[in-house]
Amino acid sequence: MLHGMLQRGRRANNTMDMHDLIRELREANKTKIVLLVADGLGGLPIEPGGKTELETARTPNLDALATEGTVGLSTPVAPGITPGSGPGHLGLFGFDPLRYQIGRGVLEALGIGVEVGPKDVAIRGNFCTIDGDGKVTDRRAGRIPTETCEKLVAKLRAGVKIEGVETLVEPVREYRLVIRFRGEGLGDDVCDTDPLSTGLHTLEPKAGEPGSEKTAKVASEFLRQAKEILKDERPANFLMMRGFARFPNIATMEDVYGLKSVAIAVYPMYRGLARLVGMTVVEPGKTLGDQFEVAKANWDKYDFFFIHYKYTDSTGEDGNFAKKVEMIEALDAEIPKLRALNPDVLMVTGDHSTPSRMRSHSFHPVPTLLWAPATTRPDLVTTFGERPCSQGGLGQFLAKDLMPLAMAHAGRLQKFGA
Amino acid sequence: MLHGMLQRGRRANNTMDMHDLIRELREANKTKIVLLVADGLGGLPIEPGGKTELETARTPNLDALATEGTVGLSTPVAPGITPGSGPGHLGLFGFDPLRYQIGRGVLEALGIGVEVGPKDVAIRGNFCTIDGDGKVTDRRAGRIPTETCEKLVAKLRAGVKIEGVETLVEPVREYRLVIRFRGEGLGDDVCDTDPLSTGLHTLEPKAGEPGSEKTAKVASEFLRQAKEILKDERPANFLMMRGFARFPNIATMEDVYGLKSVAIAVYPMYRGLARLVGMTVVEPGKTLGDQFEVAKANWDKYDFFFIHYKYTDSTGEDGNFAKKVEMIEALDAEIPKLRALNPDVLMVTGDHSTPSRMRSHSFHPVPTLLWAPATTRPDLVTTFGERPCSQGGLGQFLAKDLMPLAMAHAGRLQKFGA
Repeated sequence: MLHGMLQRGRRANNTMDMHDLIRELREANKTKIVLLVADGLGGLPIEPGGKTELETARTPNLDALATEGTVGLSTPVAPGITPGSGPGHLGLFGFDPLRYQIGRGVLEALGIGVEVGPKDVAIRGNFCTIDGDGKVTDRRAGRIPTETCEKLVAKLRAGVKIEGVETLVEPVREYRLVIRFRGEGLGDDVCDTDPLSTGLHTLEPKAGEPGSEKTAKVASEFLRQAKEILKDERPANFLMMRGFARFPNIATMEDVYGLKSVAIAVYPMYRGLARLVGMTVVEPGKTLGDQFEVAKANWDKYDFFFIHYKYTDSTGEDGNFAKKVEMIEALDAEIPKLRALNPDVLMVTGDHSTPSRMRSHSFHPVPTLLWAPATTRPDLVTTFGERPCSQGGLGQFLAKDLMPLAMAHAGRLQKFGA
Repeated sequence: MLHGMLQRGRRANNTMDMHDLIRELREANKTKIVLLVADGLGGLPIEPGGKTELETARTPNLDALATEGTVGLSTPVAPGITPGSGPGHLGLFGFDPLRYQIGRGVLEALGIGVEVGPKDVAIRGNFCTIDGDGKVTDRRAGRIPTETCEKLVAKLRAGVKIEGVETLVEPVREYRLVIRFRGEGLGDDVCDTDPLSTGLHTLEPKAGEPGSEKTAKVASEFLRQAKEILKDERPANFLMMRGFARFPNIATMEDVYGLKSVAIAVYPMYRGLARLVGMTVVEPGKTLGDQFEVAKANWDKYDFFFIHYKYTDSTGEDGNFAKKVEMIEALDAEIPKLRALNPDVLMVTGDHSTPSRMRSHSFHPVPTLLWAPATTRPDLVTTFGERPCSQGGLGQFLAKDLMPLAMAHAGRLQKFGA
């Protein structure tokens, strides 16, 4: 039985692909795995020597899980690398973010809830202003209000017709939009049309390889029609295209782990990321309490539950230390509902750190908790926080190693070798 | 001098092969390295929050080594992966278990002390029962007693004659046996003949690639003759073949590390694994005390001493927490004999964890101790146990990284680069 794996797995560098190994070793079980992602969970103290947001928060329920379970620090991508939401989540789903990369266009589309499938190319669009010679005078068209963006998008939808390809145009915010082409043979190796400074003509969308010629041609025709449709608008009388990207060639959670997986996430970006790896996306309600109720209602239907909580990140991005503490405490208060479901494996972590002191994502490793009553080897840690996690039994590890651990704790992996 | 290595090592994946690096950097020394493997050493508490077997055991001698030396947690294969004895030991010998895999047939042969060399294919055999149409009615031949197995094996030995190949047949236990073919050009890509359910004919041993055609032909002829020899036996009137496996293409300890290595192990499996990497196998006596005496008697002849202690695993497999504690204490009591030999580097670890609570091998990392009086950087840990090891100076590491550390502490590796 291992023979197939040996053949397949050794292609790359004479060692084995971890997903192939898991495919061979996995076995059925009725165990339930929950991954609760508190987005941007990790933080920093405001004052030198002070406590982080998580260390400041009163978290009796997370502390109980840390005491009974084991903790550590997760590095989302690689030491020193600050991840976006895409790589951050791929790592937690067990996909090496350096191997599986999600293009900008796809992420932008997922972020506004546009589905991206295997026949699609997604593109970030910018409305811009050009002069009579066609030279760019404002790359952001004076940051038009979102309302104007929506009106212009409606015009493009009504006007653009390209044969053999289905086009979709969606407003994002201000001068930003998303364009999606759907059809056969659409590669994504097409250069941006943004000249990157004013006083220059926009560039032609050129293909970098033969498989992307059709996309370049379609994009060029789209731009030609858009120029005509927008010609009398001011200030947004044209648009530029950036970040052409296809659906990544990525396996599903069911294919790799044999897990029927469901995403219970409020924000479109995370629903989209979950869809990329084949999770079913269900309506999450509004609050984390609602999300846990949805998990309960779907408990028998799935093996793996990805539950996403945004507010630890957004408060960090706002630089609001006190509010991030509050959001962590609000999460903690809901934990008993999750424990009441009796998951076999419960992980609480983040896709990256978002220290409110930095007002942005950061490269710092992420406090992570793994609780699995049947198989946890407890460590010496009794509270959930960055410092305690640095002393935990999970040590410091790459985020992509968390899923194999969860599979093991869930009794879903056979022994390797005799 | 490093140039050759760069050329060689970078072929595969543009980084360097660790064995090639060690081959280039190693230098002669008279230092002695001891690897004491307490099989299945790692454990779990029985009660939530309780102590593990190793933490429960009174181990003043191991604690002294932990105090003077440095400790950590070793991951045998990869996070979440539960290793068999083969991968577990290969890792400790410094061979990546995901790269060097030992087939089932070879492991089964090693486990009963059958030698496997470069010209051999080893196969697991099952006696089975077939009906008048040749269909399998019992895949285990009613679990015949070992005595019957031995008698049938004797008949096969006396009866089977295949030209151009040396055959060896050995009983294992009950319905299980080992078959070894020795000859030129014997590949191991041959499918199992077990149809995996009753009411079906056994399968023909088919080759998956041209280099294994000869093996398939030999196996087919073996089975033809066996069917004739066993036809009047009941219930075991035929046999099936599984896990065709060749000697793995693996370097020796001397080739990689320049270490003359000796294995002092009581059980055949571990003697066999040591032989695979070119260690000399000597008679171990019966007790761990005997094994240490044997090490003493051979002290001048070898550089590297692999000493294997089985009872921490077997008691764990039995689910006997108290007995495993006792076996750890028994090991601890012998440690002064080992210290009296004044090794330059002494490592105490396991090939995997075998928590008595799980009654099986597990994926949990393994407590590991490295003591090297001349070069150890002490850490804060003063007892040997899973929790203390999570705080140790070695951190969490892959088992395959232990041998390079041992080489370094033994003063056997030059500086890399100027």
